[in-house]
Order: sequence, then C-alpha cells, then structure tokens
Amino acid sequence: MDRRKFFKAGTLAGVGAALLNPLQGFAHPIENEINYKNKKAKNIIVLVSDGMSSGTLNMANIYSERILGRTTNWIQAYKDNIISRGLMDMASASSIVTDSAAASSSWGSGERVKNGVINISVNGEQLLPIWQKFKKAGKKAGCVTTVPITHATPAGFTVSMKSRNDQSAIAEEYLNIGYDVLMGGGNKYFDAETRKDKKDMYAAFSQKDYNIAKSKSDLKKIDYSKPILGVFGEDSLPYAIDRKNSKELTNEYPTLAEMTQIAIDAMKSHKNGFVLQVESGKVDWAAHANDVAGLIHDQLQFDDAVKVALDFAKADGNTLVIITTDHGNANPGIIYGKYADEHFDSIQKYNQTNESLLNKIKSDTTEKDLIDFIHSNLGFTVTKEQADHLLDYYKGLYKDDDGLYNYKKLPFKSFAEIQKEYNSVGWISMDHSADYVEIAMFGPGQQNQKPFMKNTDLHYFMLAAAEVENKF
Amino acid sequence: MDRRKFFKAGTLAGVGAALLNPLQGFAHPIENEINYKNKKAKNIIVLVSDGMSSGTLNMANIYSERILGRTTNWIQAYKDNIISRGLMDMASASSIVTDSAAASSSWGSGERVKNGVINISVNGEQLLPIWQKFKKAGKKAGCVTTVPITHATPAGFTVSMKSRNDQSAIAEEYLNIGYDVLMGGGNKYFDAETRKDKKDMYAAFSQKDYNIAKSKSDLKKIDYSKPILGVFGEDSLPYAIDRKNSKELTNEYPTLAEMTQIAIDAMKSHKNGFVLQVESGKVDWAAHANDVAGLIHDQLQFDDAVKVALDFAKADGNTLVIITTDHGNANPGIIYGKYADEHFDSIQKYNQTNESLLNKIKSDTTEKDLIDFIHSNLGFTVTKEQADHLLDYYKGLYKDDDGLYNYKKLPFKSFAEIQKEYNSVGWISMDHSADYVEIAMFGPGQQNQKPFMKNTDLHYFMLAAAEVENKF
Repeated sequence: MDRRKFFKAGTLAGVGAALLNPLQGFAHPIENEINYKNKKAKNIIVLVSDGMSSGTLNMANIYSERILGRTTNWIQAYKDNIISRGLMDMASASSIVTDSAAASSSWGSGERVKNGVINISVNGEQLLPIWQKFKKAGKKAGCVTTVPITHATPAGFTVSMKSRNDQSAIAEEYLNIGYDVLMGGGNKYFDAETRKDKKDMYAAFSQKDYNIAKSKSDLKKIDYSKPILGVFGEDSLPYAIDRKNSKELTNEYPTLAEMTQIAIDAMKSHKNGFVLQVESGKVDWAAHANDVAGLIHDQLQFDDAVKVALDFAKADGNTLVIITTDHGNANPGIIYGKYADEHFDSIQKYNQTNESLLNKIKSDTTEKDLIDFIHSNLGFTVTKEQADHLLDYYKGLYKDDDGLYNYKKLPFKSFAEIQKEYNSVGWISMDHSADYVEIAMFGPGQQNQKPFMKNTDLHYFMLAAAEVENKF
Repeated sequence: MDRRKFFKAGTLAGVGAALLNPLQGFAHPIENEINYKNKKAKNIIVLVSDGMSSGTLNMANIYSERILGRTTNWIQAYKDNIISRGLMDMASASSIVTDSAAASSSWGSGERVKNGVINISVNGEQLLPIWQKFKKAGKKAGCVTTVPITHATPAGFTVSMKSRNDQSAIAEEYLNIGYDVLMGGGNKYFDAETRKDKKDMYAAFSQKDYNIAKSKSDLKKIDYSKPILGVFGEDSLPYAIDRKNSKELTNEYPTLAEMTQIAIDAMKSHKNGFVLQVESGKVDWAAHANDVAGLIHDQLQFDDAVKVALDFAKADGNTLVIITTDHGNANPGIIYGKYADEHFDSIQKYNQTNESLLNKIKSDTTEKDLIDFIHSNLGFTVTKEQADHLLDYYKGLYKDDDGLYNYKKLPFKSFAEIQKEYNSVGWISMDHSADYVEIAMFGPGQQNQKPFMKNTDLHYFMLAAAEVENKF
C-alpha cells in the first residue's frame, strides 16, 4: 500500500472498501459500539492493575512488543478500536493522592472516603458496597487477586470496615455476606494458627458449604456448583517473574488469568448474571519497590487476565469489562539516552525480582561474589563501588528507604538507583502519585463512557449499565 | 439530586430528560460528533505542549482546580465530552525515546526519522513536510511557539534539514517557502549581528513584504494583509511565571494565547483555509530543569492557547483542533504522604522559576541570606545543610547535572531534590521518556480518531481530514 497516495475521491465519509486509503481503520470510533447500544450489562468484570502509572502500562507494552514480539491485549484492543478510553480522577476525601482503600471505596460506595478506610463515609456512616448491591439484585459476586483476598482493593468492592488493616475481620465479613468466588493470597487471615482470635475460618467457610482450594491442584478439582474460597500462600502470591523461573512456584500457584477463568466459569451460568473484580495487586508492590522486572511481568500477568475477560465478553455479548487502575505509583519511565533501547531491552535478562535477589545477599558476601551474582541473574555488571555500597547495607552501615511491602527492609531504593544506570528506567519515588488514571471499557455501557470521569462516577455507571436499581 | 436513586425505568437508552439519573451527561460519547460527520476540515490547528508527561497535564489541572478555582480548558473539554482522546506512540527511527525533531518530523512527513533530524528519511531522502503540502493545496500555513521559531517542533511541520541545530538555515528556509505566520523567539537566528553568515534575515523578510514584529506593541499594530514574522527575544520567550511577575516582561512579550489569536485572525479569512501549529516549548525546558512552577505555569499558558483554538473552532465549525505533545519528559507526579496536599498547594507561593532564582545566587551569598532569599521567593525554609549544599555549587565544589537548556549550568538537579521535600513533586530524570502521549481532537475528523495511533498516522490523518490529496 502506498501510504503517500490519498485521493480526494476517497473522502472520510466514503472510505468503506478503499484499500488504498491510509485511514483504513479510522472509520469507526468504537467498532463494536453499535452492537451494544440499548443493551444492558448482565455481567460486569472490573480489572484493576493496582498502582499502575501510565508509564507502567506503556513500558509493559513496549517490553511486550520488543521482547515478546506481540502487542499487549489492552493496547491491542485500543489499536483494534474495540474499547473506549478515558481518564479518571482518583482523589480521596483526605488527599489528592489516594491509597488503595479509599480508591476502591470510591468505586464501591460512590463516595470519597478517607485514605485507609473501607466504605465508611467521612461522617462515619457505613456505606453499602457495590458487590453487595449486585448480590441483592440477584447476581453472583466475586473477587480474585494476587495479594491477600482481604486486601484493600477487593475489600472496597465488598465490605465496610473502619480500617483496611483489619484483614481478619474482612475475612469474616466475606463469609457473613456469602460472596460466591474469593481467590487470592492471605492464609494468615484464615488460618486458626495465625489469626489472633484463633478462629478457623476455613472450617467456618466449609460449614457454609464453600469449596476450599489451597493450591493450584485443589483448584483443578473445584466443584462449580458451590461457592469458592481459594487461598494461595500466607500473604501474597509470588511475583510473575519469580513464579515463571521456579518449577515449584509454577506448580503451586495459579496465575491471575487462571483464577479469572475459573471465577468466570464458576459464575457464568447464573441466570441473573455475575460481577467479578480482578486485581493484579503486585504491580503496586513492585512500584513501591522500584522493581522494574517485577512491575513489567506482573503487568503482563494482568494483561493475560484482560484477555480472559475480553474473550469471555466477546463471546458472551452481555458482559461489560472495565479495565483500569486505582492510582499511579512511582511514575516509571524509560529515559532518553544513547543506550536507552539497549538498556531497556536488557531487562529480558533478569531472571527474578529485586526482592528475590536482594534477599539472597548476606553480610559476608564478598564484593567479587556480589558482582558475579548480579551479573549471572540480571545480566549487567555493577562497579566495585556499587557492590560495596550495596554490601554496606548488609553490614548495617546504612538503612534504605523502608517502603511499603518491604517486609525484610531490603535496599530496594539503593539497588533501583544502581539499576537505572543499566536499564534506563527511572522512578519519582517509592509511593503513589496523584495522576489521573487510565480507564477502558468493552461491552454494553461502553458507549456511555466519557473521556474524563470522577472515581465516584464509576459506582453509578456500573449500576446503570446493569440496570440495577440503587434502592438500598 | 439524590445520586443514590437510579430507577430501572430510566435505562441507559432512555435517559434523555431524566434529571434524577446519576448518569446524566454520559449519554453521548462525543457530544458534538454528530455535527462533524461527513464534514471536511477546512482549517487545522495543532497544539503541542512540548515534553508534556501525563503527570504534567494532570498536575496543571490539579493546580488549576485547587489554586485557581477552575478546571483547565483541556480537561474541561474532556468533562464536557466534546473532544475525543487517544494515546500515540512517538518512537523515532533511532530510539524508543524520541527527541522533538524526530517527533515533529513523524507528523511532518509520515515517516519515522532519526533523533536530531528534520524530515530527512533514514535513507537520506528529503521528505516534504506537511505544512508545505497544505501550502501547495492553497492553504495558508503558520507556526507559533514560545521557543525560537526555528526550533525542532515548528521546523518538523515546515522544512527538511539534516540537523535540527542548523537554526540559521531553518530561518532561511522559512523565507524561501514563504510561510504566512511565524512567531516565537530566536532573534539570534535572524539578526545579522548574531548570525555566523552575517545575513540580515529581517531585511530579507521585509523585502518579501513580511510584517516584522519584535515586541508586543509591534504585534498590536500588525497588518493582517501581509505575512507575519514575529521574533521576540534572543532565544526563547520568558517562562509564564517569570513574565507574570515582571511588568517589564509582561509589556514586552506576547503570551502564547495572544500569538495564537493573532495567527488565527491573520489567516482565518483565506478562502482555502489555513493550518497552524502552536507550541508551548518551555514545558519541555521546565521538565528538563525539573522546575515545577516553570512547568505548571507554562502548561497553563498552553491551556490558554487551547481555549483560543477551541473557541475559534466552535464558532467556525470547519476547523479540526488537535491537542497533544511530542513526548513525555521527566514523568513528574505528586507523591503520596501526610502533607502531599499542603506541599503541592505551596507551589502557589513561588514567584519565579528555579532558573530565575538560582541565577541570582552568588558565590559570596551567605547561608542565612540564601535561606531568607528562598523563603521570600518560594515560601519554604530550607535547612542550613541544604543551603550549604547549594552554596557549595556556587563555590565550584561540585557540578550539577548539565541538562539541556541549562545554559548557565545552574544546580537545577540539586535544587529540585531539595524542593521535593517541600512540594512533594518527584521526577524520574532530567530528560525525555518513552511514554505514549495523550492526543485529543475537536472538530471535523475527530469522529475518526482511534484510541491508539502511531505518530506517523497523524500525518495521513490530517491530510485526509482536510481532504487534501497526498500527490506531492
């Protein structure tokens, strides 16, 4: 096709079959919009890549295109013009920079609450979360995540709680309400041994006739006629890159896409439809750790779940898929420079997260061993000065930034600063940002998406798309 | 309005006058799309906020809403649902991170060229820039910017040149081609005294019957019947915040919005229409300097020009307005924390750019004087250690990052790191990023915008929207 030729005869209005027209493909703003007009969303799937700055979405796609040779499902859906897109303002009642609890609650309740709080209004009023509204309207409802299933994002769709930290109480609330699918990490909030109150939540869920799955193999045998509780690991599921490079982890833990598929399969036959929230929680954790391989691979894991949801919705025709994030985090980006491409491509050599790598360094590791160790696992060679600087941390000579989800207080910050020299990826901080976030939609309702919305609008948008009366 | 009530009767399809419906306003994806279908764009205005990361767009709006009490024109147009939006991949032929020359050339020629080059293909072929194509099609064509009018972004729309740095040659090319409106900085590329070849470009433009304006007052007397060359200042125009706080600069220099209005007024009566490129070039420079007040106020200056363009296009009905940026830069964002809001709001106290402030510090400035000086101009109090660290720079004890557009090699980086503690704004670097960029459209053609496009697509998009045959 000669892209330099565009003849007057082929106007915008009449492009149709004009193969010579370079604008081919521009013709319909949303290709499938027409199919969905006047249709209601029987099912809703909300996919949240927690803490995804726009740079994270972009870097994952650049990585996927350059290294894996394919466009991500999210960006491909934009290129195919089948999903709408907009920006969303995620500010909370207490700050322009939200946490995940207030973010999820804004969608959950249609009100802005303070950071740290799950669906309790600024005046202390308990707000009914949206997945309960849909349950009351006769739908099945569930959540799937790679962090504890009791974590802030699933909690914001499902319960009201004064503090996001009270994850043991959140586990009990899930049972009281009777959600249909719950899958993620967080054994410590269910196991009698690790709960402060010594309650055996597994026994309690079993009594209410739940399927309990604690491993990938349990999940394979799951009975779809009963509600599902799947709890994999003490706290979070492993990072995608660490699982990929470990047979043991691969065998033990399901992927986010696998959990998403099971959640859909378990609920899709329900006559009144279902609602499902899917979270890639460790995109946020990797951003807090300024860990680029953790970030990109968990974003790609999220993208695999996007495909599962879009494939189902395309075939089903009655499902609204919403793809978004709750806030930016660390605003990563690839930095201009002579070696920017080469540096960024070198991330394909990383065989584990920084968390995994830094955890293996000891106070008696030698400078030479450390240089070799980093080279053999990440593919680049740090200088002696950089190795010594890192080792000083293990000798207790300095403390690194504490950071969230940095349980072992590893030198995440120092290491990311060293890595930047070799991978050309920069970070503004180790915490959330106030950026407006990306939100995309596919299916019945997408035609009503505006280019900009407030977080609380999404609550009403979902109710209206499903034509569920907000009478509760 | 009780937002909690949404009755089944009021379905998405039939919301019309349902005032109780919380989805009021979601009804039409693009409110004015219907008016523009099957219409061609007689005029095109492309507005480029150079080096605008998504965080820059967001921070400017958050600043505008919190401090100035109004939403920016760009975001308001999203909220009003009158403009379409998408992402654009700006990679160049030589890197995933583009420079402004390759970025502008991708739009200018429809081909990706190497960084640093203006519309010369990878094989050395000279490519015809899009504003020349429109000139040949009978339209008037012009450029307006706050940096030298011979800078990379206007050059990419208008000329072919082996190096973006050859700004003196670009000035000559402008005259050879005979553009209708040229306004920006860059006296040194026109003045016989400062040009290496000692050519008097003003005399040359005058001979070809151009209006020459060298100040805001010259501009007021301009004769619209002749082509316009407006050159304000040796290099760039002042930053918006520095102009605002100086009567002298305010009197001498036009704003970007004023230049945009004049450019439109000078070309709007042409029977075949016009094309105009408007650039806020110092958004990029402020990002290179990690200068938050410079950045926000120049983004707001850009936003004023957006209003001028949208107002004209709304009234005119035949004008396509494209609002975008050529690449991210430094990916700034507001960082989570107890004082995030208060810190960010404190930027309103800044009365000048960091460039202006740091330029006034001398090697014999005392620690106390420096602390007072910063406090009285920016409103925060640095510690003695921070003051000493800054003063060490002026004593020649260390060099800061050189940075682009840091002509006097001031300690931009060190100062931004200090400021971060007081304003909660972080930066990933002092250079461009690979992020996909925001692109919005209003007017005839917007209905054909896809949610994702390649930079080179925009070239063909503009030709097709205007129904100009690409036969050159």
